[in-house]
Amino acid sequence: MTEQFQKQLDDYFEFLRFPSISTASEHAGDVRACGDWLVGKLGGMGMSVELHETPGYPVVVARNAHREGLNTVLIYGHYDVQPVDPLELWDSGPFEPELRDGRVWARGATDNKGQMMTHVLGVEQMLSERGELPVNLIFLFEGEEEIGSPNLVPFLESHKEELACDIIAVSDTGMVARGVPTMGYGLRGIACCEVTVRGPKGDLHSGLYGGAVANPATAVARLVASLHDADGNIAIDGFYDDVKPLEDWEREMWAQVPGVTREDILDTTGSPDVFGEPGYSSAERLWARPTAEVNGIGAGYQGEGSKTVLPAEAMAKFSFRLVPNQDPKDIAEKVEAHLIKHAPAGVSVEVHAGHDGKPYYADPNSAFGKAGQVALEKAFGKKPVLIREGGSIPIIKDMQDILGADSLLLGLALPDCQIHAPNENFYVENFEGGIRMSQVLLDELSKVE
Amino acid sequence: MTEQFQKQLDDYFEFLRFPSISTASEHAGDVRACGDWLVGKLGGMGMSVELHETPGYPVVVARNAHREGLNTVLIYGHYDVQPVDPLELWDSGPFEPELRDGRVWARGATDNKGQMMTHVLGVEQMLSERGELPVNLIFLFEGEEEIGSPNLVPFLESHKEELACDIIAVSDTGMVARGVPTMGYGLRGIACCEVTVRGPKGDLHSGLYGGAVANPATAVARLVASLHDADGNIAIDGFYDDVKPLEDWEREMWAQVPGVTREDILDTTGSPDVFGEPGYSSAERLWARPTAEVNGIGAGYQGEGSKTVLPAEAMAKFSFRLVPNQDPKDIAEKVEAHLIKHAPAGVSVEVHAGHDGKPYYADPNSAFGKAGQVALEKAFGKKPVLIREGGSIPIIKDMQDILGADSLLLGLALPDCQIHAPNENFYVENFEGGIRMSQVLLDELSKVE
Repeated sequence: MTEQFQKQLDDYFEFLRFPSISTASEHAGDVRACGDWLVGKLGGMGMSVELHETPGYPVVVARNAHREGLNTVLIYGHYDVQPVDPLELWDSGPFEPELRDGRVWARGATDNKGQMMTHVLGVEQMLSERGELPVNLIFLFEGEEEIGSPNLVPFLESHKEELACDIIAVSDTGMVARGVPTMGYGLRGIACCEVTVRGPKGDLHSGLYGGAVANPATAVARLVASLHDADGNIAIDGFYDDVKPLEDWEREMWAQVPGVTREDILDTTGSPDVFGEPGYSSAERLWARPTAEVNGIGAGYQGEGSKTVLPAEAMAKFSFRLVPNQDPKDIAEKVEAHLIKHAPAGVSVEVHAGHDGKPYYADPNSAFGKAGQVALEKAFGKKPVLIREGGSIPIIKDMQDILGADSLLLGLALPDCQIHAPNENFYVENFEGGIRMSQVLLDELSKVE
Repeated sequence: MTEQFQKQLDDYFEFLRFPSISTASEHAGDVRACGDWLVGKLGGMGMSVELHETPGYPVVVARNAHREGLNTVLIYGHYDVQPVDPLELWDSGPFEPELRDGRVWARGATDNKGQMMTHVLGVEQMLSERGELPVNLIFLFEGEEEIGSPNLVPFLESHKEELACDIIAVSDTGMVARGVPTMGYGLRGIACCEVTVRGPKGDLHSGLYGGAVANPATAVARLVASLHDADGNIAIDGFYDDVKPLEDWEREMWAQVPGVTREDILDTTGSPDVFGEPGYSSAERLWARPTAEVNGIGAGYQGEGSKTVLPAEAMAKFSFRLVPNQDPKDIAEKVEAHLIKHAPAGVSVEVHAGHDGKPYYADPNSAFGKAGQVALEKAFGKKPVLIREGGSIPIIKDMQDILGADSLLLGLALPDCQIHAPNENFYVENFEGGIRMSQVLLDELSKVE
């Protein structure tokens, strides 16, 4: 291990030792201390740093000396982490980082302290070797990602001039497999809602009244069943209207991507079979097709044994994962219209919209996209795979909308990195690779005209 | 009030003061004391009484002096009662009977101490006035009805010779309205089952996996929805095969019965509308048509807000109310076959059969049935309505099967008698009417050849 790399690991470990759990108010001081440490670190590298207070945890913004004519690159990350319980399942303390078996074990090791640190340390190395960067850089680090970034959109809105940039880089997603550099260029959006079905004013005896009034549990099940046809297509009028069709190159590319074959899905999930929209592979279903999922359903007696009750009420919670160019508000309206239209006789149906987020897409073969691909290939010695993600990171779309810049999703997490779970870890090879990649990336992005 | 009626009320109140709650082991002594009191009462009337021990509470059997050539009538009742909680909702003590506003208020006032007492006191009156009864009478009183009569079937089996009879009378059901004498001649049966639907080995993130594997919550909803067609007909192959069709006289009679019109059902249940099998009135749906009800359904997150989970498992509990001549075992098989056949792709489906009970039917216009109708008309001054009931009382069918005798269901409960609830009560007019009816009944039954 070089002296330089040892120093980089030391910084990383120091950063990991802050229990910066944003969901737990007893750790408020730790989150702030972690942000302060970051300010010190970035200032020590010669960057000009601002700590912006928000109604929650501060946003840290750092810049190199900007020069006219250079491309401006914004790198986003977050210094807060998930809670650690159940603590007894950790093999070593979540805030006592350990290097073991080629990985660093700690809460935040991957999500997101490890990944954002590769950019910080890459920039530090570049600055110390060259005295300057080939781009105008803005680091934007928040402390509230794990609680849904409640204060970041207002911050972006009120600082959009200072944060104006040409391209954004984010390492907060995954590599599909070890040694396979991965660039993400799309995320699914989401629209949530809940339906309440009401029948009689109170639970009824199913013998005395069964057959003469509608059963809300049956009604809610019929509503859920109405969302799909028997083959698995979503049966809501106009649901697919704005879906951007898959391009041929995407289908060809994804057919080669490891980790998302039928066997991989069965192995990871333990499901008896894959199932989804006809005519699409698992990867296509996950990354480029929308879903209608029931996240919860409930009515009547769910305990042991039987209770012959006809329940007064039933509920179901839905989330719809959306793809470009579906609009969450439009989908919410279509869903509500569908549920009302399909409301079974004899019950009342009430729909409540929940939170939502837009899908994200940016052409991976734009000039900046290509630069990102080259950087990944140079850093990891292999052509990257181009994927979208099934999950939703609303802030990426918000930055696209507010700052007008696309994000290159340069994920370094591996499937067994255990993010949000006990024994979170980060492969040292990806920590090293990330520091390398960050520097190549700035060079490549600087060349884009 | 006559001196005789005052004495009858005193007996009734004494009987009500025993907290003979069979579900509560701390009341075991009270249940037994209540049975002992009954033995004393019946013995004091000059009947020969036997107290039969069972693995639970004793069965009390009493007989008058039987004479050759007379019809044998068995009168069934139960001396145990339901629990009383929530106690704070009672306007007077559940075991301190009070005569107030023309009703007697106490736990068991109607179900079943009041109703069975009318028979005991009717017989006492007849014996004291005539010295003998016009029939060979057998009283059969159990102390475990409210816990499902676990020991009665074995008792019937092992005493079928001593309990042999021509007809059975039971007052443990309802009058459809005040002043409307009511004879029941049918009860629905029941078959219960539970289905478990399993998908992935653990809950999944709906963003990361949604769309690529089947969702057990969706699958269970599709299974539930498959039980009916859109109109409300049950869609299980062969489900209606053995259903005894309604007879014209039943449809005509029930169209006149108060308490079961559309407006009555809406008023009692508070449902936004009636709903059920097309082509049948509410009364017909309740009393002569089978049902497929969901008593409980559950999967995933049912708390406040949203959680974008794809649940590993889902369940639903079903009960099917059956009518003559459906067989619960046969229906259970058809249901299981249906659920397996309709199991959605990508999940596993497991069906567990639950408890069941056969439907009951006896021709109300048989010779004994007609005698029952005449007795009701003479006692209450009005032609009785003939109904079936939507609920299930398995012991009635068991007595038909084991003793070979039909039951006349001569209910005296009114819809506002609050059985099983706080402020249970019995109309004094029905207590008086019952004592009258019991005597006319024995006279009428004695005439059947």
